[in-house]
Amino acid sequence: MSQFNRRHLLGLEGVSQDEINHILDTADSLKEINQRPIKKVPTLRGRLVINFFYEASTRTKTSFELAAKRLSADTFSLSASGSSITKGETLIDTAKNLEAMAPDLIVMRHSSSGAPHFLAKHIKPSIINAGDGTHEHPTQALLDMMTIREKLGRLDGLKVSIIGDISHSRVARSNILGLTTMGSSVCIYGPRTLIPPYAESLGVEIASSMQEAIDDADVVMMLRVQRERLEDVLFPSLREYAQRFGLGVRHLAKAKPEVLVMHPGPINRGVEMSPEVADGPYSVILQQVANGVAVRMALLYLLLSPETK
Amino acid sequence: MSQFNRRHLLGLEGVSQDEINHILDTADSLKEINQRPIKKVPTLRGRLVINFFYEASTRTKTSFELAAKRLSADTFSLSASGSSITKGETLIDTAKNLEAMAPDLIVMRHSSSGAPHFLAKHIKPSIINAGDGTHEHPTQALLDMMTIREKLGRLDGLKVSIIGDISHSRVARSNILGLTTMGSSVCIYGPRTLIPPYAESLGVEIASSMQEAIDDADVVMMLRVQRERLEDVLFPSLREYAQRFGLGVRHLAKAKPEVLVMHPGPINRGVEMSPEVADGPYSVILQQVANGVAVRMALLYLLLSPETK
Amino acid sequence: MSQFNRRHLLGLEGVSQDEINHILDTADSLKEINQRPIKKVPTLRGRLVINFFYEASTRTKTSFELAAKRLSADTFSLSASGSSITKGETLIDTAKNLEAMAPDLIVMRHSSSGAPHFLAKHIKPSIINAGDGTHEHPTQALLDMMTIREKLGRLDGLKVSIIGDISHSRVARSNILGLTTMGSSVCIYGPRTLIPPYAESLGVEIASSMQEAIDDADVVMMLRVQRERLEDVLFPSLREYAQRFGLGVRHLAKAKPEVLVMHPGPINRGVEMSPEVADGPYSVILQQVANGVAVRMALLYLLLSPETK
Repeated sequence: MSQFNRRHLLGLEGVSQDEINHILDTADSLKEINQRPIKKVPTLRGRLVINFFYEASTRTKTSFELAAKRLSADTFSLSASGSSITKGETLIDTAKNLEAMAPDLIVMRHSSSGAPHFLAKHIKPSIINAGDGTHEHPTQALLDMMTIREKLGRLDGLKVSIIGDISHSRVARSNILGLTTMGSSVCIYGPRTLIPPYAESLGVEIASSMQEAIDDADVVMMLRVQRERLEDVLFPSLREYAQRFGLGVRHLAKAKPEVLVMHPGPINRGVEMSPEVADGPYSVILQQVANGVAVRMALLYLLLSPETK
Repeated sequence: MSQFNRRHLLGLEGVSQDEINHILDTADSLKEINQRPIKKVPTLRGRLVINFFYEASTRTKTSFELAAKRLSADTFSLSASGSSITKGETLIDTAKNLEAMAPDLIVMRHSSSGAPHFLAKHIKPSIINAGDGTHEHPTQALLDMMTIREKLGRLDGLKVSIIGDISHSRVARSNILGLTTMGSSVCIYGPRTLIPPYAESLGVEIASSMQEAIDDADVVMMLRVQRERLEDVLFPSLREYAQRFGLGVRHLAKAKPEVLVMHPGPINRGVEMSPEVADGPYSVILQQVANGVAVRMALLYLLLSPETK
Repeated sequence: MSQFNRRHLLGLEGVSQDEINHILDTADSLKEINQRPIKKVPTLRGRLVINFFYEASTRTKTSFELAAKRLSADTFSLSASGSSITKGETLIDTAKNLEAMAPDLIVMRHSSSGAPHFLAKHIKPSIINAGDGTHEHPTQALLDMMTIREKLGRLDGLKVSIIGDISHSRVARSNILGLTTMGSSVCIYGPRTLIPPYAESLGVEIASSMQEAIDDADVVMMLRVQRERLEDVLFPSLREYAQRFGLGVRHLAKAKPEVLVMHPGPINRGVEMSPEVADGPYSVILQQVANGVAVRMALLYLLLSPETK
């Protein structure tokens, strides 16, 4: 009966169409809780979810905390600053120590690709990858897919264009994996030096201009410019970036009438897109945030609820 | 029936006598919860209160968190450091993102006067101003008034003297607005350069000496010296300040026998007042802190409870 | 009936055998909650526990937070950074302010020996010392004793060797007090300059070599090297320390077959002990962490539950 028998969500690589549909269906049905006056169900009462973030994060951490609270789980957050991590403890020792406190699930963000996979091999609690280096950010891709499905009614046969620094984007990578699994085609565009070598092997089309990427796209997904990349010689200046890779109203004039504009946030207004686009009729950026809570509730539920096991 | 139909508490400007009485009556009746062994009622179960503090704060933030917990609301706190705010996101984008997570109420402190009013115009949740720049700090004034009413039995016909850096004090401003609305008269005293131009237009008397301010006062409210003002050329040295504007036992010798000494905390002992005064028989500083929790419970209740709408 | 009538746990000095047994028995029976799917009982619902940490801590603070949540108490944490403490408020003023918020219990860590005792004299809530300067860390010693009793079946007639910087270790001091009260003998070993003058007066044996300390020990407890000591002229270099006072497999070859290796964490691998020892068959380091939650639950329960008063 259950289409979801995983203990961890480490990435979308290898996750099937059925599994993704099952997660999104669960999220759809849990989303309604967030609109009630009493936004809370007792489903995960007495379960412990630890948010273990080695990288700064507001939105993802908050979203997971909220998802846990809405299911009545206990939750607390550890960040690298002010913790034992700064006392020179190894990652595995910190993880083993957390494990000794008997959490049911650890949500982990880390600057090293593969860190959550390493943890999943060495400790018992369920692990959700909340972003590992330049590798994957599966909950972001799931909330993106939830938003697309909600707005366009399906996840197959679409053209989704992802624009920006593809090479360093775990958001792009997880979306490429998820969307192609669901039967959509992904097109990428960005500074030539920031198109990853793996792109073609994943069946992704590389556009040769903004307009080519946007013209027949059902979804235009803009990636955030990471400030820390600005010192990179491969990265253009902010001004040049905005001119060549920023999304403006003029680009959307020729786009499909139902095109969706997405962004994982936080937006650098005037860089990745103009304010008119961010606040315009095609933008679903705030729906993405709202769906983020629902997708994370779904994952906590599916990984922890005894009924589903 | 209900005397309170507001969605926000942004300041005491324009808040009526009836409304203030209704808030304080509610706080009086909720205060008893804080003395029970089980200090918790289920009134706001499943409601979400976000504490959104752009300025450092312990006491106000803690007081709001506690108020929310005692009414069984879910609550979490965001501060500027380590959040998206430092990633260059605009205030309105951060607020819209928070809104997407479906909070019922946002408690906000910000260094810019008017920031909570701006938010209240753009997002749906209720907003409580927990201090905006040099403008207002309405919950502080309400807890001050609750304490005065509790101790002296009324809020009309009193003389309340506020002493210190009036110009930069949102505590002074909210108290002037609230106390004059309630029918008391306010007298101010402080360094001449730190008396605001708006004082007279608000019907406030300006004392010409400490003794004049204190002699027939029912309440002496000392303002905190903000360390960041010490570099200001308009501000006297700490030592000079203590000598000329600090409250000592000698000043109170001639005061009314029931005079109340108040301070919003944290106290700089030996600056705004001597330790003998802070710990002396007239001081109600710790009652102010205790009443702070009750006043904030009252506001959360009045703004969020469905029965009152 | 009740063997525990204290309001505070400030240290193990003066705590009787009966009291220690009662705490550990309570911890044993509460430990089972941590293995349930629903790790939560309503015992302390509506009670407020404040974690008040003037020194950075992850594991102890987390352990207390978790203990409080598992008993359904409300809890929040204050740390010195970003709080009024940095605004120049005195310790007693901060404590009085916290008291005004009506907490039932304050867990306190402070860099000054005696700070929790000072607080217990001046405010009403129960106080648990979570480490004060170089003085005591009673909950660490209790979790150590719980682990020893669990593994070896008793706490009397054992030889426990504590190795490292004894002088500055509140862990060592509390263990010496607790273990000798329970009828075990304690042997210490470490850099000669870091053997405290009080050692002999407490009936502690001073070993003259690693091997002498380890040979007939039932428990070998390694102390953490505090990085901040490394600049101390009395402290050897890390390398020299590891060679002379670090525990290796070779030392354990001649030890008792059931010897326990303990460490309060976080471990500096390769300094206090080799990775082979830390992860080896004698190590009970992670059981210590798990028992930490149970011991803290027991103390919160004994100090706060009305049935036990």
